[in-house]
Amino acid sequence: MTERRQLLFLTGNKHKLREAKQILHDFDVQSKRIELPELQEINEQIIVEEKIRQALKVMDCEVFVEDTSLCFDALNGLPGPLIKWFEDKIGTRGLVDMLSAYSDKTAYAKCYVGYGLPARDGKDAKIMVFEGSVKGRIVEPEGTANFGFDPIFLPDGHDMTFAQMGPEEKNKISHRRLALEKFRAYLKKNQ
Amino acid sequence: MTERRQLLFLTGNKHKLREAKQILHDFDVQSKRIELPELQEINEQIIVEEKIRQALKVMDCEVFVEDTSLCFDALNGLPGPLIKWFEDKIGTRGLVDMLSAYSDKTAYAKCYVGYGLPARDGKDAKIMVFEGSVKGRIVEPEGTANFGFDPIFLPDGHDMTFAQMGPEEKNKISHRRLALEKFRAYLKKNQ
Repeated sequence: MTERRQLLFLTGNKHKLREAKQILHDFDVQSKRIELPELQEINEQIIVEEKIRQALKVMDCEVFVEDTSLCFDALNGLPGPLIKWFEDKIGTRGLVDMLSAYSDKTAYAKCYVGYGLPARDGKDAKIMVFEGSVKGRIVEPEGTANFGFDPIFLPDGHDMTFAQMGPEEKNKISHRRLALEKFRAYLKKNQ
Repeated sequence: MTERRQLLFLTGNKHKLREAKQILHDFDVQSKRIELPELQEINEQIIVEEKIRQALKVMDCEVFVEDTSLCFDALNGLPGPLIKWFEDKIGTRGLVDMLSAYSDKTAYAKCYVGYGLPARDGKDAKIMVFEGSVKGRIVEPEGTANFGFDPIFLPDGHDMTFAQMGPEEKNKISHRRLALEKFRAYLKKNQ
């Protein structure tokens, strides 16, 4: 058996780490919690690229980061990448209430994976971003599995929220799965 | 007549510049628009201090920056310093609608002024933050004067929104006035 290629996931979130390990199962995914300044931006691509740029200043191995967005169509894309502050301050209950003035409950869950390869052997550093997006709508909280906004996100074509699904089922269809699959395909092609 | 002390306001916002010139009338307030990365943070003090830290890397004169927050009590302080993204994406109409699920319409308008003095004559650089806060509530948009969230902010003890007041009247009582007055008092003591 060949040695699995090591990838360092820069995160302190154990849920995200668990999901990444499961999806990138043919890699040796390790994690490290480091403080990376996060830009106040509404464009996730810019946020993630800048995080990798900062990370490559202090790390000398292949790294990746992940950023999650929850975009309400009725709020023209908000909260977007600012979602974590909403979860902290008003929770999933508050997110549902905030939308109560609007009949349009459609939303996107988005995941952005940023990958960084340090400069080596005379080659420039490389920064790539992979995106996964799932359309759905915001519903009253249901379910307790998984984490974050999962209880209020009902993906299109399903009759369970992400929090009503088991981790395996969520990981088959989630925004994070889609982004990490693209990342995985890229890594496989560039062994 | 003595020369007025020059202060450089790092902003591209002409409304904020006008208000600062009016309030800091005994200083020679100039402005410069420079790109300063803004942290994704909910703590305004941290945002403003970091902006000044970044500014002092590239500027060699006394500078100040300003950051505005609008905090809804019903949303546990949100949008806070993230307000500009809400103004961009959903406007004042959206801010009012977002609150319609809540009977509590109370809010704070807050202004944070960050001041930076570069290291010189063997003395370390200095970074100070001055805060001004006005309590009020969120109402249906009224008035067209001034800017930003002024049409929906009714300060306590008044029967006009900031946008129904003329600039002079707003500048007598606003969050920006309170923060800039503290800044002015500090500068006067430290001529």
